[in-house]
Amino acid sequence: MKLNFKRSDLLNSVNIVLKAVSSRTTMPILECILIDASEKGVYLTANDMELGIETGVENCQVLEGGRAAVDAKLFSEIIRKISLEDDSVITVTGDESSIITIVSDNSTFRIQYKDPDQFPSLPVIDKENYISLSQYTLKEVIRQTIFSISPNDSNKMMTGELFEVKGSELKVVSLDGHRISIKNTELKEDYGNMKVIIPGKTLNEISKIISGDNDKEVIIYFSKNHVLFKFDNTLMVSRLIDGEYFKIDQMLSSDYETKTVVNKKDFLDSIERSTILVRENDKKPLIINISDSTMSLKLNSILGSMDSELLVRKQGKDIMIGFNPRFLLDALRVIDDEEVSLYMTNPKAPCFIKDDNGKYIYLILPVNFNPSGY
Amino acid sequence: MKLNFKRSDLLNSVNIVLKAVSSRTTMPILECILIDASEKGVYLTANDMELGIETGVENCQVLEGGRAAVDAKLFSEIIRKISLEDDSVITVTGDESSIITIVSDNSTFRIQYKDPDQFPSLPVIDKENYISLSQYTLKEVIRQTIFSISPNDSNKMMTGELFEVKGSELKVVSLDGHRISIKNTELKEDYGNMKVIIPGKTLNEISKIISGDNDKEVIIYFSKNHVLFKFDNTLMVSRLIDGEYFKIDQMLSSDYETKTVVNKKDFLDSIERSTILVRENDKKPLIINISDSTMSLKLNSILGSMDSELLVRKQGKDIMIGFNPRFLLDALRVIDDEEVSLYMTNPKAPCFIKDDNGKYIYLILPVNFNPSGY
Repeated sequence: MKLNFKRSDLLNSVNIVLKAVSSRTTMPILECILIDASEKGVYLTANDMELGIETGVENCQVLEGGRAAVDAKLFSEIIRKISLEDDSVITVTGDESSIITIVSDNSTFRIQYKDPDQFPSLPVIDKENYISLSQYTLKEVIRQTIFSISPNDSNKMMTGELFEVKGSELKVVSLDGHRISIKNTELKEDYGNMKVIIPGKTLNEISKIISGDNDKEVIIYFSKNHVLFKFDNTLMVSRLIDGEYFKIDQMLSSDYETKTVVNKKDFLDSIERSTILVRENDKKPLIINISDSTMSLKLNSILGSMDSELLVRKQGKDIMIGFNPRFLLDALRVIDDEEVSLYMTNPKAPCFIKDDNGKYIYLILPVNFNPSGY
Repeated sequence: MKLNFKRSDLLNSVNIVLKAVSSRTTMPILECILIDASEKGVYLTANDMELGIETGVENCQVLEGGRAAVDAKLFSEIIRKISLEDDSVITVTGDESSIITIVSDNSTFRIQYKDPDQFPSLPVIDKENYISLSQYTLKEVIRQTIFSISPNDSNKMMTGELFEVKGSELKVVSLDGHRISIKNTELKEDYGNMKVIIPGKTLNEISKIISGDNDKEVIIYFSKNHVLFKFDNTLMVSRLIDGEYFKIDQMLSSDYETKTVVNKKDFLDSIERSTILVRENDKKPLIINISDSTMSLKLNSILGSMDSELLVRKQGKDIMIGFNPRFLLDALRVIDDEEVSLYMTNPKAPCFIKDDNGKYIYLILPVNFNPSGY
């Protein structure tokens, strides 16, 4: 194997596949990147058995084909540092004695490589069911829902997100037992009906790799056990979470007693301020009191108290309701609108933050508090 | 007590004194900032008993004088977040019942304050012996020497730096048993003779506070047990390390067998590259082989090998010598010259990196290696 790369392109491809390199594993081969060079070009692959990524390297020259599995961390550090110029040529040579030689400018590295045949190949995915959307849209959909998956493995289903396609509608849902986030997106055409649960880790990783460009597409293929993302010259395959997702429709209601419209930034800033008084694991509620055109926010803790007042537009009854301030913050941070609408029924019933077009719905459960203290 | 502040000025002063707030202490009063308001203005003080800082707040209005000790972390977070506009007015009021009220825009915080009389006042320093230098110079002197103090408390003296004044010469020295860094600076006038050992922590903190401006001065007062830095409207007092510093003159020698001049950036980049192959706590030496006009660098470890070659200008004998690459890196990173000169005698004797004017001297001890392996 003998290959010439342009440093910036090789580094770019290495950084993409690094997302699927296993960090804690008992199988050293999973800490490797597979280099596969043939007349078709050079492809890099990493696979931690949950998530696998294959990407083609641009602007490379295959002087002699071959395959090798190299330690991902070491290889990426060498590529990053062997030269600091984007345009440098990096020559990678593999010999019969399991040594990879990496040369650029005046420096030479020699490291061992592992048997490429030990490297687990990516599963082959059936390409019948798919949707296509822009990298920008996928990135946004993930950003606006990923915060309410559960970090806790005790309910596997909550660590992933529901991707449900009904004709030309994509609905993405995440929930963690205290809140539900729903994002509805109109697709360009009718793709039929599909429904999968994608692991949160996969969504986090793809969201870091895709550019967020509106002109670039991602095709998502859905099979029984896997999902495949295809974009640029990269394939990303992930296992799905098995099972039937929570029935959320019965938790959504369009009835309400109080509707309040508030400036998003002011609301967000006030809530953020209140969290100064909340130390970790401390569950002090933020009490919101809406009366006429005033929303007052109050938080009392062992550290002190905060009071804040905002002007709002209110329809319906006055209400006093308590929340975990962090749950409100998470939702408000990903909403891009200047104003948000809150729909509430009573201090025990969920609050909905949603827009008029049904593009997003954030359901947040209130918390109990002792009203006589306020 | 009732005070009006401009947010940005208050925040600036709080950030300065925060550097002297104790993070781990059994005395809660040391986690506080003392606010002292009188017709002279408002002064903030923090004191962890090793290091104390007092600073005046600009653009404040004392409607009613008074004193209070407030939790530093909480107070600084409130000031940072109660308003996000630099120009906002923040009103701080202290009442008889130990409550501080902080108001800005539409928000109000109430927190407890502690008895200001419990707060330890800063020691009074004799102002007889001093030097004056620019903030820029002090910051540079610290940056160029601080890396070779010992992080290890087992030899207290090594955790500080020698500041020695002889007439109009300031010599700053740090050492950790493997290397010595010396920086000589010409002062503007003759200040007499003084010699103190300043704790590394103090130097790190002052270096973060001073602006690095060439037009702003720092006056450093030396007393028997303390050093006082006076700059802008801030006083910083630190205990000194007690004792007699190491006699380093006998370790310095101007004899050498090999002098090598090398491009600093190329040398630095090559050494940095070699450290890819060195995992933490692994003591693999970097072998430098200087022969005619070529310097070759070689590092072998369990991870692989690196070879690199540089063109140099050499006087004297060829030499093969081994170093801990991190010690070379630390020195080269703080040298601003385009080329550096290395003076070596033999593979067991210290290497000197120094300039022609005696402004800096970095002594680095070589490490043993088995030459037959190279």
